[in-house]
Amino acid sequence: MRCEIIAIGTELLLGQIVDTNSSWLGQELALAGIDSLHQTKVGDNLERIVGSIRLALGRSDAVILCGGLGPTQDDITREAIAEVMGVSLIRDHDMGEKIRELFTSRGREMTQNNLRQADRPKGASLIPEMPGTAPGLICPIENQVIYAVPGVPHEMRTMVRGTVISDLKRRAGVTSVICSRVLRTWGRTESGLAEMLADRIQELDELGTATLAFQASGIEGLKVRITVKAPDEAAANVIVAEEEERVRRILGDCVFGIDDETMESVVLDLLRERGMRLAVAESLTGGLVGARLAAIPVASEVFVGSVVAYSNDASFKWCEMPQGPTVSREAVMVMANGVRQALNAEVGLAVTGIASPVESSDIPVGTVFFGLAIGDRIEAVSAVMPGDRNRIREYSVINLLNYLRRTLLFGERE
Amino acid sequence: MRCEIIAIGTELLLGQIVDTNSSWLGQELALAGIDSLHQTKVGDNLERIVGSIRLALGRSDAVILCGGLGPTQDDITREAIAEVMGVSLIRDHDMGEKIRELFTSRGREMTQNNLRQADRPKGASLIPEMPGTAPGLICPIENQVIYAVPGVPHEMRTMVRGTVISDLKRRAGVTSVICSRVLRTWGRTESGLAEMLADRIQELDELGTATLAFQASGIEGLKVRITVKAPDEAAANVIVAEEEERVRRILGDCVFGIDDETMESVVLDLLRERGMRLAVAESLTGGLVGARLAAIPVASEVFVGSVVAYSNDASFKWCEMPQGPTVSREAVMVMANGVRQALNAEVGLAVTGIASPVESSDIPVGTVFFGLAIGDRIEAVSAVMPGDRNRIREYSVINLLNYLRRTLLFGERE
Repeated sequence: MRCEIIAIGTELLLGQIVDTNSSWLGQELALAGIDSLHQTKVGDNLERIVGSIRLALGRSDAVILCGGLGPTQDDITREAIAEVMGVSLIRDHDMGEKIRELFTSRGREMTQNNLRQADRPKGASLIPEMPGTAPGLICPIENQVIYAVPGVPHEMRTMVRGTVISDLKRRAGVTSVICSRVLRTWGRTESGLAEMLADRIQELDELGTATLAFQASGIEGLKVRITVKAPDEAAANVIVAEEEERVRRILGDCVFGIDDETMESVVLDLLRERGMRLAVAESLTGGLVGARLAAIPVASEVFVGSVVAYSNDASFKWCEMPQGPTVSREAVMVMANGVRQALNAEVGLAVTGIASPVESSDIPVGTVFFGLAIGDRIEAVSAVMPGDRNRIREYSVINLLNYLRRTLLFGERE
Repeated sequence: MRCEIIAIGTELLLGQIVDTNSSWLGQELALAGIDSLHQTKVGDNLERIVGSIRLALGRSDAVILCGGLGPTQDDITREAIAEVMGVSLIRDHDMGEKIRELFTSRGREMTQNNLRQADRPKGASLIPEMPGTAPGLICPIENQVIYAVPGVPHEMRTMVRGTVISDLKRRAGVTSVICSRVLRTWGRTESGLAEMLADRIQELDELGTATLAFQASGIEGLKVRITVKAPDEAAANVIVAEEEERVRRILGDCVFGIDDETMESVVLDLLRERGMRLAVAESLTGGLVGARLAAIPVASEVFVGSVVAYSNDASFKWCEMPQGPTVSREAVMVMANGVRQALNAEVGLAVTGIASPVESSDIPVGTVFFGLAIGDRIEAVSAVMPGDRNRIREYSVINLLNYLRRTLLFGERE
């Protein structure tokens, strides 16, 4: 089964919007075991949309059209499909009423243009999910099929997860289920992970029960994706869980979470389980540690607050730091302990370092000190990080939180 | 002149990487007055790459291939171009030496595979810019042309800005120059801006000297892009400057900057010019204000530090706040003045509010208070913001900084 994706919209060609929909669809199709060998962007032009659909149907079994289902004159995906199918558009009376009601319930006035969204090519059926005002379409052409979904990401995703993927799998006669789990790691290179897992990957090649793949996710570390194909979901979940356990045994504590977990959500959960509250003192990160923690809803139960000492004055005042160099092991330990005491928290974290060249210092750019105060332990580690100013700051946030994670889990002293 | 873009790489189809290169290229082509009507993604498969290039040359004058120029066996863009041109690959001896030297100078060992990057189709020439180890190619086919550039964004951009665009313009016989400037605005809706500028847009339609276009940039406000076509750059710059002045007069003080300026860079510049230093007290934003300020290199001259009072305890301690409600006009004024005094800064900013439902409060979610202490003025404004938790926080940062900007520029009291 091959399925192409056509993203429709002149704003995509002009680069005013980045086409993230096709990437997301590509991932979902791959997980469903459906090949997607061509993906195209085309503008709001009837002739070229029709041409692109015909081209896609000439080399694939199915096409997903993304965008061009809105109410304005630019939105001509419905017309293009009707032309390819060789049918006319009919107005769906029930859908027209539904759209009218949607507008009334939101206290907005509906224009006649909005009723264009109730049009569908003869022979097409509506996708049952409809999170916005644009209905999605399933348009069969003999043994091929065109799906039309809106360009608004959450509307598109709801329809694809709700209907499109299962309809494609049914047409492809796919009865097996594909499950995957992502193990998130920090602190290893891709080649390092590959080396550790080389034997297991070879075993799996022979067994065929699961596959392992690596995926870089920038400053968020590396992901190891376990993918399993099985007759049903229950069976797939058992194999995924077994494989996860095996991979965790091999990789050890560089695995910090799974799937949607982040370093900050994992650390906040660990602290909450232990009934500990966290205070943070930041210098070079300027507030980034606090901002990332506060973005997690559970933060308010655990994260007390932070001080951002971007000038030295602030460090001296808040962390009761003695006068002296502020970028050092000693300074970062004073900061961690000072902020913990100032805020009556059980745990204090601190980070200081050099992200840009400083005239008066012979410490290399990228040098960062991480401080931790917990119970009777007040300690620090340091690292030299690569990259530009912002990369150093982003890496520092994850490294700092990972330092706390490892201490909480393994009590390790580095 | 029509130019298509083909992004090459199986990882793009699988959605492991989002294709931002095509969007950037689309913008550059549009600015150069070159139409790009189709943009395609294709995997690392010789037959399909060749097919995609032939298809593109069948409907356009030029094609930019992006990716597949690396040293591994997957990288087959060179082979695909040779097949389309009907020529063989020849190894460029000088380039081979250059690649060898690059490796030596970086202290890395070169494998034989790396020399594949010195191959080029017979008749192709090398793009002079080479920021990485992958040379780019210009491959003429009669009166059409194929460009090949690496998929690494900064390498691609250097070659496109350095050579590809000017080569395309020369081939198209384009002698005019297109210049554009973006005015960044905050606080108006797109329809509001459109209404204010309606008369001028109509005048420009008749004059033909410039165009105005709107572009949403999410939480960063709305952009108004002025685009001018003129015989040479000097003439274009004069028209752009005149038009900028006219648009600024119409839009007034909702214009906060141009081109790459951000709200935080503008505010930091204004403070620096006045010799003022800034201290910040944050609650619901969790450190985001400080983090965004600190991301600007000039921050260290102006931004002293901040306190993030995520629990009430922290607010009471650091800002010497009296016990009582922490989400109020009074509280945010105490915070702004308290942090200013604590850090000996000339200006204090504070933000507090409610981003998620709170049981014990009847203040609506999205209510945010902004406090400002400058000279003998200590004051506050409030707003109710839409969206989810993170949207409210992001909007709050920009609103807070805009409040300071307007006070510094216009001294206004709201």
